[in-house]
Amino acid sequence: MPTPARGSSTTPGAPDAEALCDAALAGDRRALARLLTAVENRTPLAEMALRRLYPLAGRAQLVGVTGPPGAGKSTLVAALIAELRRAGRPVAVVAVDPSSPITGGAVLGDRVRMQAYAADDGVFIRSMASRGHSGGLSAATTAAAAVFDAVGFDIVLIETVGTGQSEVEVAAAADTTVVVEAPEMGDEVQAIKAGLLEVADVIVVNKGDRPGAHRTAGQLHAMLADAPRDARPGRPSPKRPEVLVTTAATGEGVAELLAAIDRHRSTVRGSDGETSRLKRAEAQVWAVLVDRLHARVRALEGAEEVPAAGLSAAIPSPRVSAAGGLLRSVASHEIDPYAAADAILARLVGDAPGSREARK
Amino acid sequence: MPTPARGSSTTPGAPDAEALCDAALAGDRRALARLLTAVENRTPLAEMALRRLYPLAGRAQLVGVTGPPGAGKSTLVAALIAELRRAGRPVAVVAVDPSSPITGGAVLGDRVRMQAYAADDGVFIRSMASRGHSGGLSAATTAAAAVFDAVGFDIVLIETVGTGQSEVEVAAAADTTVVVEAPEMGDEVQAIKAGLLEVADVIVVNKGDRPGAHRTAGQLHAMLADAPRDARPGRPSPKRPEVLVTTAATGEGVAELLAAIDRHRSTVRGSDGETSRLKRAEAQVWAVLVDRLHARVRALEGAEEVPAAGLSAAIPSPRVSAAGGLLRSVASHEIDPYAAADAILARLVGDAPGSREARK
Repeated sequence: MPTPARGSSTTPGAPDAEALCDAALAGDRRALARLLTAVENRTPLAEMALRRLYPLAGRAQLVGVTGPPGAGKSTLVAALIAELRRAGRPVAVVAVDPSSPITGGAVLGDRVRMQAYAADDGVFIRSMASRGHSGGLSAATTAAAAVFDAVGFDIVLIETVGTGQSEVEVAAAADTTVVVEAPEMGDEVQAIKAGLLEVADVIVVNKGDRPGAHRTAGQLHAMLADAPRDARPGRPSPKRPEVLVTTAATGEGVAELLAAIDRHRSTVRGSDGETSRLKRAEAQVWAVLVDRLHARVRALEGAEEVPAAGLSAAIPSPRVSAAGGLLRSVASHEIDPYAAADAILARLVGDAPGSREARK
Repeated sequence: MPTPARGSSTTPGAPDAEALCDAALAGDRRALARLLTAVENRTPLAEMALRRLYPLAGRAQLVGVTGPPGAGKSTLVAALIAELRRAGRPVAVVAVDPSSPITGGAVLGDRVRMQAYAADDGVFIRSMASRGHSGGLSAATTAAAAVFDAVGFDIVLIETVGTGQSEVEVAAAADTTVVVEAPEMGDEVQAIKAGLLEVADVIVVNKGDRPGAHRTAGQLHAMLADAPRDARPGRPSPKRPEVLVTTAATGEGVAELLAAIDRHRSTVRGSDGETSRLKRAEAQVWAVLVDRLHARVRALEGAEEVPAAGLSAAIPSPRVSAAGGLLRSVASHEIDPYAAADAILARLVGDAPGSREARK
């Protein structure tokens, strides 16, 4: 008997999920934390909880904050939290965290940040490991944001530590994407190297007290003037992002940044936000589809255990065991990946490459 | 009539593929370049070509080179190329490149690097955009490596520019993973922040002429001594990585690095390499499975075009059009992602979450 795949069973933990949702909706932070852990691990409890909470979500503004290492993203997020709290606005943070299993790294840092607001129910900071999520990182992050949204957080900051493709996608799937840059980082503007410019709705040159901050802002202005607008994928009516200068450490310019974020919110309420909302829906639906397909592959006969490759959520390691023999033949180049995939697909859903039955 | 999905049709371009493979195998660099482009874009031609070339591959050593920005990866790769050429060894490079569509960024840099070897048939440097690949980046990269392998390149360097999750996975899926670090980058060893230590087979502290290079190497030694070995996912008999100091700009220590890479090669020939080979096979098979599933979703009735979300290769944007209505309902929080996924799955492959039929 194959074990059920993550999220594929809805029965176990069901009452638990109901109770947790009620508690979280009533403001119980421990219940909220447990829900977020379930969502991150895509457990059956997460499926129950999301089915209950998802319809309650859809009001919060998701604000992605990304940029190269050393730009001061964490400090800027902390300054934004302080600014929002001054205005009495609740705020949740999802910190996408590539930190090493060996050291804990940034997760530890976020625990420390969290301490500062332990007594403030208006702030919730949650780290989410990017490790093992990469095809599904957008899904995991936006599912966590939906939980925060459902329990009443009006703004959710999504801070990505890395500047890899999946991290950029996470930030780009937010309603409003803030790209943080530090002045004079090396011989070129790092955000460009990382391909961040075309996903930015607001660009912040942080560490504004440093020499060259305003020169960097000027460079960015000039670049954006030259940039082909269609270079921002899927943005229906692309606008040039605002470029601001902040000094997060002193809080200078942070109120202006929040104002720019609020201004952008009004635009994403309309059709401008449609693409981000579709991206997030797509990521979540596809993640579930992959889990379901994964459950079927796991259920194939001839499952045998091999060391988990743990490549990514989009390539769940148990699949190694599902068609282990086939994968070994591919690994030894006896058969090609297409032959193996079609053999697996044929066993899963009938005739392999064709989609005749799907057209019925 | 739905258009066929990428890679799902084998008829179009078939003779073209045969001719291209013959030419590439005969050493035609233009043909090789065209094959690599097809592989990167996962065209039907790529499927034909890989089915022909994949059985010819499996001999080359794939060497992942990754590390934080500014560590000098490109310079080190250039120095490794020079060292290999001195020994008369052919070398191919796949540079995974997050560069911006706006500026061209590192792609341009690689074109420049390529120029230096335009007259040398023993060197081929190819940039591959990470944008739009994330779920499938490992598959695209290792497919390109398989092409280089099949046409006779004995060593393939896979240089990742970013340090995001998918880039780390690409490097980790190589036979030998070299993590490059620069001395004293900020207040902590950046490679740890990026979660790179546990995927390293060889660690290089580059810019060895800088103060603190050997101190950084010492820190790394100490850290590795403390590190739980099981923290290196999927490595059956984890060995502590060697730590070397190089100065890529002058070539100092590069011969020793190549020797370390060659030493590691012998270990990966055996069972130590099994996991990397399975990871790569898994990534490629799963990428094809996703394409096939994608073809079926596209073939669903009621397809309507919406702006391409371009989220990732694992989440191909045309899927937005496939079940556009459902995705819109999820985006507006009328239905939850699980309900939408099960509705799509039911139309694709019959009864949704269960895997009864798969167990037959």
